[in-house]
Amino acid sequence: RCARECIDIAYGFFTPLEGFMGREDVDAVCEKMTLRDGTLWPIPIVLDVKDEQIQAKKIKEGDTILLTYSDSALAILEVEQIFRFDKIKMAKAVLGTTDEKHPGVRMLNGWENTFMGGKITLVNPPRFQPPFDKFWYTPRQLREKIAEKGWKRVVAHQTRNVPHSGHEWLMKGAWFSANGELPVEKLKTGILVNCIIGPKRMGDYIDEAIALCHHKLCEARYFRDDIHLVSIALWDMRYAGPKEAIFHAILRTNLGCTHHMFGRDHAGVGSYYDPYDAHRIFDQISEEKLSIKPVRILEWWYCPVCGEVTYSGLCAHSKERQKFSGTLIRSM
Amino acid sequence: RCARECIDIAYGFFTPLEGFMGREDVDAVCEKMTLRDGTLWPIPIVLDVKDEQIQAKKIKEGDTILLTYSDSALAILEVEQIFRFDKIKMAKAVLGTTDEKHPGVRMLNGWENTFMGGKITLVNPPRFQPPFDKFWYTPRQLREKIAEKGWKRVVAHQTRNVPHSGHEWLMKGAWFSANGELPVEKLKTGILVNCIIGPKRMGDYIDEAIALCHHKLCEARYFRDDIHLVSIALWDMRYAGPKEAIFHAILRTNLGCTHHMFGRDHAGVGSYYDPYDAHRIFDQISEEKLSIKPVRILEWWYCPVCGEVTYSGLCAHSKERQKFSGTLIRSM
Repeated sequence: RCARECIDIAYGFFTPLEGFMGREDVDAVCEKMTLRDGTLWPIPIVLDVKDEQIQAKKIKEGDTILLTYSDSALAILEVEQIFRFDKIKMAKAVLGTTDEKHPGVRMLNGWENTFMGGKITLVNPPRFQPPFDKFWYTPRQLREKIAEKGWKRVVAHQTRNVPHSGHEWLMKGAWFSANGELPVEKLKTGILVNCIIGPKRMGDYIDEAIALCHHKLCEARYFRDDIHLVSIALWDMRYAGPKEAIFHAILRTNLGCTHHMFGRDHAGVGSYYDPYDAHRIFDQISEEKLSIKPVRILEWWYCPVCGEVTYSGLCAHSKERQKFSGTLIRSM
Repeated sequence: RCARECIDIAYGFFTPLEGFMGREDVDAVCEKMTLRDGTLWPIPIVLDVKDEQIQAKKIKEGDTILLTYSDSALAILEVEQIFRFDKIKMAKAVLGTTDEKHPGVRMLNGWENTFMGGKITLVNPPRFQPPFDKFWYTPRQLREKIAEKGWKRVVAHQTRNVPHSGHEWLMKGAWFSANGELPVEKLKTGILVNCIIGPKRMGDYIDEAIALCHHKLCEARYFRDDIHLVSIALWDMRYAGPKEAIFHAILRTNLGCTHHMFGRDHAGVGSYYDPYDAHRIFDQISEEKLSIKPVRILEWWYCPVCGEVTYSGLCAHSKERQKFSGTLIRSM
């Protein structure tokens, strides 16, 4: 996780962060959902470290240390702060629970209690194996790609799923929501399918399948290639529901997106969050704090009366409808 | 036509017009697509009159006269101006053609060459026979209905057609475009299906069928009744393509709509206009001049590869697709 987050920080996925957070930032994130300077930020980005390691290597504040990954040099950390933080406080603030069944709580419980904050400088760029290499874009590369495609608006689709028809139409509907009143003779709105790469909970799809299946939707021309792009982002899902929704919004703002889809129970797990908590949290956030526009989406379902996939906000056959369920498909 | 337009003027369908146009307004409409005060207006609203009638009844400027319809008193006209106007100039400016095959030109050719301009006051409210009575709302009543439904945004569907699946999805897509970034737990965007009632060209549907079939889409619950409303407007289609598109936008602004759908070849006929002229004309009109937002729409088609109705802006199977054609269906 730390290696992935080093890369994210270094390439600007986590702008305005330039390093791992110190205590003041983590405090502000937990208490006010902002950085210490007031910038909206919902999830701590921290580097935990074993006390024995600090003692063995005599690391102290002010040092510059080399972080390694699989025995290769990864990044330089300027150690600004070494601090302890109450993980229970963190879990309550970010995840709203300390229940060990919550995968985000389990992740947190696996961390040490000591953290090092400070600026990160990448030493070696990451190398991606196929098929990931062709979906890897840094934020700068992605913005260039978006400019090249001539998109004025980009609506992000957060996914840790192999797409089914429900997702396909969720994306189609969101394209209309984002395109709004723009001219259509030359399309200027694109869909960015941004796949989360990193450990997930049991039963989630493997990363390769997610990216390749989304790309296949375009290859098989269910989506025109001038309005569709698949990319990956390195992130260890916290399943933090509404707070993770805000995190996703910030992440995709950094990727050059203007809109972001939020479906039912976005980044949720079990019944820890109301299915529409991740919609409601955006009601409280002003446009000055978050420029990306949330595209809130109800359910797409198959309706045997309409004889097609349709939208719960439009179709009134709620008794007859057949739901798509990613959870059910994953369980098979 | 004049009776229908008296009613439109009196109830505010044609706001800011308070009567039939005088020469200065008609001149400005033809030359600059505005009223003489600079307000955007694309189509002359005029009352033509037989010269013999003026002579027989000794009508002169400054008179107040009673207009009748089927021997009943309809409205009072304060005759501000009696003037002649070159109908060829009018046809060229508004319709872009003087070809007699164009139904708008034929309508114009049927008019007299003399016109009376002046303020209109309705004497007797119109009575509508079933089924039209339940679809008749004045602009004021419609705004009340919209408030009652809790809609913050309303996207107008202009129609002179019995809907097919292509129209159904055109409306669904436009709902997303209009709803944009609004919350969805309580829907605040509605579709107003505003059916044009009045003489049309040969082969067009009869008025009753248009309104009833659209209403049936809601009764049969293809659309939820909290996002769908059918109403009628009295208007003799000019088939003026892009200029009529602007007229429709002004009309629906007066009905309380915030958005207006414009599909392929909106209000066009034959090949007098490019299918997307009615999209492009809105590129030149600033938001200060026209507050309603155009929702420009490409084609919805049936795609046998996707196995469903889909959008030409999204689906890349343009070779395999099967078009819906209202023209074909009307001809059957």
